[in-house]
Amino acid sequence: MFRVMPQDDKFFTLLNTAAANAVDTAAALSDFVQHFENVQEKSRHIKELESRGDNITHEIITKLNQTFVTPIDREDIHAIASHMDDIVDWMEAASARLAMYRIEVPTPQCVALVNVIEQSVQEVKAAVAALPARNFELVRRHSMEINRLENEADRLLREDLADLFATEKDPLTVMKWKEIYETLEVVTDECEDVAHLLESVVMKNA
Amino acid sequence: MFRVMPQDDKFFTLLNTAAANAVDTAAALSDFVQHFENVQEKSRHIKELESRGDNITHEIITKLNQTFVTPIDREDIHAIASHMDDIVDWMEAASARLAMYRIEVPTPQCVALVNVIEQSVQEVKAAVAALPARNFELVRRHSMEINRLENEADRLLREDLADLFATEKDPLTVMKWKEIYETLEVVTDECEDVAHLLESVVMKNA
Amino acid sequence: MFRVMPQDDKFFTLLNTAAANAVDTAAALSDFVQHFENVQEKSRHIKELESRGDNITHEIITKLNQTFVTPIDREDIHAIASHMDDIVDWMEAASARLAMYRIEVPTPQCVALVNVIEQSVQEVKAAVAALPARNFELVRRHSMEINRLENEADRLLREDLADLFATEKDPLTVMKWKEIYETLEVVTDECEDVAHLLESVVMKNA
Repeated sequence: MFRVMPQDDKFFTLLNTAAANAVDTAAALSDFVQHFENVQEKSRHIKELESRGDNITHEIITKLNQTFVTPIDREDIHAIASHMDDIVDWMEAASARLAMYRIEVPTPQCVALVNVIEQSVQEVKAAVAALPARNFELVRRHSMEINRLENEADRLLREDLADLFATEKDPLTVMKWKEIYETLEVVTDECEDVAHLLESVVMKNA
Repeated sequence: MFRVMPQDDKFFTLLNTAAANAVDTAAALSDFVQHFENVQEKSRHIKELESRGDNITHEIITKLNQTFVTPIDREDIHAIASHMDDIVDWMEAASARLAMYRIEVPTPQCVALVNVIEQSVQEVKAAVAALPARNFELVRRHSMEINRLENEADRLLREDLADLFATEKDPLTVMKWKEIYETLEVVTDECEDVAHLLESVVMKNA
Repeated sequence: MFRVMPQDDKFFTLLNTAAANAVDTAAALSDFVQHFENVQEKSRHIKELESRGDNITHEIITKLNQTFVTPIDREDIHAIASHMDDIVDWMEAASARLAMYRIEVPTPQCVALVNVIEQSVQEVKAAVAALPARNFELVRRHSMEINRLENEADRLLREDLADLFATEKDPLTVMKWKEIYETLEVVTDECEDVAHLLESVVMKNA
């Protein structure tokens, strides 16, 4: 059973802060691909959100190393924090590639993948919020939705790559979009990793 | 020492079931690349085997979370199950790419890599079967063979990529085959990860 | 607190040996890209260093499985050894690609990335050397430098990829260099993983 003490609150608060930062990054990425203007400035903003995420992760890990009793397994807190960091890193990697490759305008396929990402990151935030109350049913419900969204992103990616190779004749354009689509799909994989970790944690502490 | 109890049998049975499913998937992939017809149907069949693998993995993890005493370290069971899941996921990813990229006929290089995979997955199954008896010599022998097959796949991949860039002039064709060969090679890396885990487990419990 | 016993010395000695081998590999890679001649022979030499690294890693893991009390957490020794192995594997992978793809001469961008790698691997060696004395300040100082070098490599990679797509018209050439640059950048990620592990270990044992 969770021992809820001030110390514990701190870990849950930090995990919620990391989740909120991931939601902010997803919103910024969504705005970026839908209103593709001031590209340098918008991608720099996403880079700042990524740095903020690094700081939150670093704070969690430092605190873990300094704390003797943790509300949930030390390794689980570490793994959840690391994968939430990865969620943001991969969103930033995708936005950086849109800028680096001098994309003129994001494809509808790109916008559709970002839309799935945004939903998935919101579900991650909701699942993390359900953690301190040990609400297994709630965590499980969000986790199932995250799994569904990962399958959806994977299906979209496969369709998009099949279309890209079938219709685009310029190899450099194929390479750029292939990498951007694959980078976006990884975000939903990372969300799924967080979901599985949260399910395990709640199950162990049920 | 292993405590062999009915509960323990259940974990070993599930790990064997996962290994058997990986062997079935390797056989289906081998048939797919050697008799490349009914592409949609055959790749859908491999997708079904992958879903079956997901269910087995999910059952193992749920059981782990509900079990207090496990026959071998909880983390080891989790890691072995996850990597066996990855073996199947990567085989499915390769078969999906053969379908998505509208490959006309698999190259001899592709068939050769799948042949190495099939052998490696069979060795994984044999090594997993040797686990409950703590047969270190037997696990070690299969593990060494899996390492040899991984080296063989890596050597083939490097040769294949060198040839591909030296002889194929169409960049899109290079991209497709490069990705398929690399995806296939990852399967043998995942087999090696399972082999290393099994060796560690048997050594710890010797 | 570290219990320093003969047995412990052995682990620290092996980790230092692995770090020294990584430094040797980085030096060989640096020579390879700066004096790009006798390509088969030099890349074979790097492959030998990688095999030597495998043997050191294997010795550490075997020893871990046979040792009851370890000077620092078993999982940490395992993770540090594995990531130091990966550092060398990725350097070898980059050198193999330079040979496989029949590169005529490494680009200045390639040489610059290898230069960052060489510095980072030297910092890893220095940080590992500071481990037995639990010198947190020293480990932290090297770790910060490794983080800086990883950021530097990431910045260079992004610049290099942007330039490559903007200036190189031959798609096969773009593919080759993209893969080589990305492979080199991964080396600095692996160095950063080792740095984070060393920081955690020293913090936990402070």
